[in-house]
Formats: sequence, C-alpha cells, structure tokens
Amino acid sequence: MPDPLSRISEPGRVADAGEAISADELLLASRNHAMPLEALRYDVTPVGLHYLLVHYDIPLVDETSWRLRVGGAVRDPLVLSLEDLRAMPSRTVPVTLECAGNGRAAMTPRPVSQPWLSGAVGTAEWTGVPLAQLLRDADLAPGALEVVFTGSDHGVERGVEQDYQRALTVADAMADDVLVAVEMNGAPLPPQHGFPARLVVPGWYGMAHVKWLKDVTVVHRRFEGFQHAAYRLRQEAGERGVAVTRIEPRALLAPPGFPDFMTRRRVLRAGEVLLEGRAWSGWGEVVRVEVSMDDGLTWQDASLRRGPGRWAWRGFDLLWQACPGDWTVRVRAHDETGRRQPDAPPWNRGGFANNADPGVPVTVLAD
Amino acid sequence: MPDPLSRISEPGRVADAGEAISADELLLASRNHAMPLEALRYDVTPVGLHYLLVHYDIPLVDETSWRLRVGGAVRDPLVLSLEDLRAMPSRTVPVTLECAGNGRAAMTPRPVSQPWLSGAVGTAEWTGVPLAQLLRDADLAPGALEVVFTGSDHGVERGVEQDYQRALTVADAMADDVLVAVEMNGAPLPPQHGFPARLVVPGWYGMAHVKWLKDVTVVHRRFEGFQHAAYRLRQEAGERGVAVTRIEPRALLAPPGFPDFMTRRRVLRAGEVLLEGRAWSGWGEVVRVEVSMDDGLTWQDASLRRGPGRWAWRGFDLLWQACPGDWTVRVRAHDETGRRQPDAPPWNRGGFANNADPGVPVTVLAD
Repeated sequence: MPDPLSRISEPGRVADAGEAISADELLLASRNHAMPLEALRYDVTPVGLHYLLVHYDIPLVDETSWRLRVGGAVRDPLVLSLEDLRAMPSRTVPVTLECAGNGRAAMTPRPVSQPWLSGAVGTAEWTGVPLAQLLRDADLAPGALEVVFTGSDHGVERGVEQDYQRALTVADAMADDVLVAVEMNGAPLPPQHGFPARLVVPGWYGMAHVKWLKDVTVVHRRFEGFQHAAYRLRQEAGERGVAVTRIEPRALLAPPGFPDFMTRRRVLRAGEVLLEGRAWSGWGEVVRVEVSMDDGLTWQDASLRRGPGRWAWRGFDLLWQACPGDWTVRVRAHDETGRRQPDAPPWNRGGFANNADPGVPVTVLAD
Repeated sequence: MPDPLSRISEPGRVADAGEAISADELLLASRNHAMPLEALRYDVTPVGLHYLLVHYDIPLVDETSWRLRVGGAVRDPLVLSLEDLRAMPSRTVPVTLECAGNGRAAMTPRPVSQPWLSGAVGTAEWTGVPLAQLLRDADLAPGALEVVFTGSDHGVERGVEQDYQRALTVADAMADDVLVAVEMNGAPLPPQHGFPARLVVPGWYGMAHVKWLKDVTVVHRRFEGFQHAAYRLRQEAGERGVAVTRIEPRALLAPPGFPDFMTRRRVLRAGEVLLEGRAWSGWGEVVRVEVSMDDGLTWQDASLRRGPGRWAWRGFDLLWQACPGDWTVRVRAHDETGRRQPDAPPWNRGGFANNADPGVPVTVLAD
C-alpha cells in the first residue's frame, strides 16, 4: 500500500526553463509576506511589516497550559510556564532576521518553494531569557553534543509528517545573545511570530529561530532531522551539501521616489535625491556599502550609520544628482570578515542564501 | 512628446488563456498579504494577520505636523491635529474588511492585478470619531452632494499620477458608524493600516476605507476620480459598468487538520472533526451558512454564532464524521437581504467581488 502522505506531498523540484509561478507558489506568496521595502526606513520594523514565513499553520497555543520542557542529556530537566520564563532575568536584543529563501524567485532556474523576491527580512527587538542560562540551570550531562528545538507547528513536508524541528551544537546554543524570546518590540509575541515563546539565534537565517517553541532536548549525537536535511546548499539532488547557517551580507535600497501600482517601477523627479537603505551580515559588521546608479558599471561608497545593535542592520545613504532617464540602482555590502555581496545570484537547488541585489529600476522625470 | 508616465504604467488587462502569474503579480503578492486562513479562529484578527493592500507606498507621516483638513462646500472648515481628533468623543466598531479584489486570481480569465486568492479579509476593532460629527461641525453648505477623501499615499496607476482618492455621497458619509479611525484593536494605527488616521466605512469593500487620510472635501458634483472609474464591474473595457460598493456575502472555512507545506492541501485523521469558519456580508446579517463535504453535491446547515458586532463576521461550525478519502469542503453564506454566495465565480474585467468559495481539498487518513 502506498504511503498516503506521498499522495499529498510532492518531492522538491526546480522549475522548468521559463516556467512561470505555479498556483502552489502563489498560495504561499499570498499567506507569507515580505517586508514592503519602504519599511527599510525604520531601524526597528513595526509588527506586521516584518517578513513572515510559516511552514505549516500558526498554531493556537493556550498560554496557561503551555510549558517549555528542557530535557534530554541534562541532570536537572526543567518544566517552565510562561510566568516562570517572564520572571527570569531577561535581555533585549535587536536582531535582523532574514529568510534563508530570500531571493529564491530571482534564481534561474527557480527552485519551487515560497517564491521570495528580496524583501524577506525585518529587524525586531527580541526580549527573553538567554538560552545559555536555561541550559546551565538544566545542567548539561557529559558528552552533550547538540540541542534540539521543537515547535508546535505541525504539518507534512515532502511526505514527512512533523513538528517543525531544528538543532544547534551546544557551542552555538550557549552563545551570547541566543534567546528564548517572549516579547517582540516590547509586547508579547504576536501569534504569527511564535507566541508564547520562540528561539532567536542572532546572525542566523530564519530557519534556526524556532517559533512556538515547546521542547528543548539535549542530545549526544548529531541531529539529522528533516529541516536539517532540507536547509543545505546543493547543486544536485543527491549530494550531501553544506548546511545553511549564518546570513550572508546584503544591502537593500529603500526604493526612492514613488511607485507605479502594477509594475512597482519607481518614478522620481530630477534633482537631488537621498538614496537610503540598510545593510546586514550574520558573519560580522558591515563595513562598506557601495551604490551604483548605472546598473553596476561604476560604484560609489555610501555613508554608513550606526544600527540599533551588533546583530542588526545598519543604515546607509548617498546623495544622488538624478538626471532624467532610466536608471538601475544597485547596492553591494561588504562585511568585516571580507565577505561581499555577489553581483549575480549564486544558485543551489533549495534556493537558499541568494544575497545578490536585484537592483531597483528607476525612471527620473525632467523637473 | 509621449507622456513619460505612459512608459512606466501599462493599461489594465486580462491574462491570456493559460497565462501563469507574472513577475509583476508576484511582486504585488509578496508585498501585500492575505490573512492566513487559520486566523479565522479569531473573532478579532491580530495585527499583522489582517489582510493588507497598499496601492503605492506606505507613506511616512509625521504625527506632530499632520493635520486633517475638512473643507470644500462647508461653512466652517476644520483643521484638526491628531491630538484634536483624540480629544473628541469616539466610538469603537468591530468591522470585517475585505478587499474588493479578493478571489481575483481564481477568475478565468484572470484580470492582471494583485492576485488574491480567498484570504484578503480581516476583522478589527476600529476606534475613532464618527465622520458625521466632523461634517456637522464643518456645517455642510446647501447642495453638498459628495465627500471626497484624500490619502497621503502617492503613486502612478495606469499612467495617472495621484494621491489615493475616493468619495462617498453625503448620505453614505453621514451614515452611522462611518469613522475617522485613529486606533486599531485598541492601539494607534500601525503605519500600514493608515497611521495616523483612516476612513472606515463599515460594510463596504476595502477601497472605500481611505488610509493615511489627510483631506476631506465636500463637493457639489459627482466625483469622477481615477479610483472611482477603476472600481467598477465591467464585462468590456469601454463600458461604464456598475460601482463596487458593499461586500457580497461570503463564508470561509478555517482549513481543518494540518497542511502540506508546498501545496497547502489539508490532512486529517478519520473521526469527528469540528468544521469552523466565519461568514459576513456588507448588505445585512448572515442568516444561514451551508457546508458541503462532497464538493457541492449535498449541503448541510451549520450552526451560527454571534459575531463581535453588526458590521463583523460571525462564526459557524458543523460536526463532521470524516471518513478516509479525498474530500472538497465548500461553504455558502446567505444574508438577510436574500443574497447568497454563488457556486461559480462571477466575472468582470477588474476582478472584483468574486465571492464564490473555492473549496478546501482535504485528505482524510484512516485512523
């Protein structure tokens, strides 16, 4: 008898040459949402503008019966209520979060999944208990290797029924500023961002920040769950690939002028224009942002501003004397580790970590 | 010399037979967002889950310098600060808001615009000053016919540069519960929902609820602005058509069970399942909701619950003994005026007011 779930799910695939967006991809694009790029004006993204990706459904969690269990290879397992968590010493960390699939729909050929363009990003102030504190309270047993995080969101993916689950090595889990967050921008987490508690792993792509967290289990071996196999950079379907971890450097322009409704093409009037945007990297501080008004032919350095924190984006700006005509404005970030945004999209079968800037086409009108 | 804006914008069009979603449509789908359907569990939709459509950019409005002007054919023009508005007697009204384009992408052929499926809806508690009070304070001049509302969002649409603008007849504008809202769900309006003030016209599709309101002008003649010409039901491009006004009745099912990530197909296990959803109409109270488990062959009446208010949706539910197999669950609302959801999508060139239920495909697994 064939597995009934294999009737429901299809294997991952890459679109055919020239294949347009499918009904399934549109449905995902309609539920999940990017940050409208004009929201790059905010240091901290207002709730509802922060990008959102939900793998399955937003679960309904009853906060009074909800418990966070910390167990496995520990000497003192914990069972914590939301009240317990709220009573513990907390920290607030501004973090820029980007979906690992940001830029996927700009890849050729296009991996078929949530069809992100460039806006799957946002910055929030997350408040919560340092995970390291919880792990110290639970007292790791000798030989503890990884920490597995389980969320309440439940679904089927590629034929596998699952609760969303990811792991970190003990070293990554104990890192400074990794939080079990209970607040976003100073208020309880909204349902869609993980109420009542979620993991926040500053510097990492979104797949690591397990929402609707219910269980933290310390294990002695490498975790090989579905979402670890899924989030890997592969050129071929069969290969092992490389794990997706930290956010690659990226600068993004707040589109100048005003848009056309249907094409979103930008229009502005000739004269002085302040080009502004934000840049970030999960590997280290952004130290340089370049801007090109001629689609990458020539580049100028933008001024950098201080960001809201070390794990968050920083602003950049550049004054442009805009002359009438059609322009494509591109931006390019460099971080302190020497990583730089590529000019063309890197490609992999999962559609991950495309940090190339697609550019913003602008029409400058006389006067 | 050709108008430079006509290079930027394209005329409205209908997709070719079999034409898939275009890059422009995907960009709109990525910025704007539907309510994830599991949020039908909430009487009042949490911020960030309510559907969002922004015609141009979310404007940045400085609340200290912002003023609402009420002028035109009035004897006592008003200039109100946000503080002035907040100091006036206010009312809180729960309102179900639906985009006029909800269901557009399910039409055949598909009008090319924001490609909504079925989730462009949400319910919020709006708090603000009754518009009728402002108009009484301004003292309408004799012969006042319509009231024109101008928002701060600016862009180009079909070659026409504009601030978003809509009008109501004086009778509609003076109607009970039409608000200049300054709060959504008990907090200041989020930027994307019209901060600092927006119009709320209970019962009407979203295009009437002008966001980022800055000007209210009373006029002596029919307003014939761009957005009035745009939001009309037309079979042919040239015809005058019929204005889109109130929300057609619709019931929507909270998808049962859990989803497949990519297809969003629902999976559940055989046995008793409580099917739940919400139903609304801008014309009058929903008095009956039918549910079909066999794709419309047979129908049963659901139980109706009280909603949060006369302008808001009401819940419905029905217990289903789900047997293994593939099912398509459909719902159908009737309102007190005798309007009923159609079984097939009505069609018009703008893709408006498609209130047919697309149905929810469900796979029921044994045990």
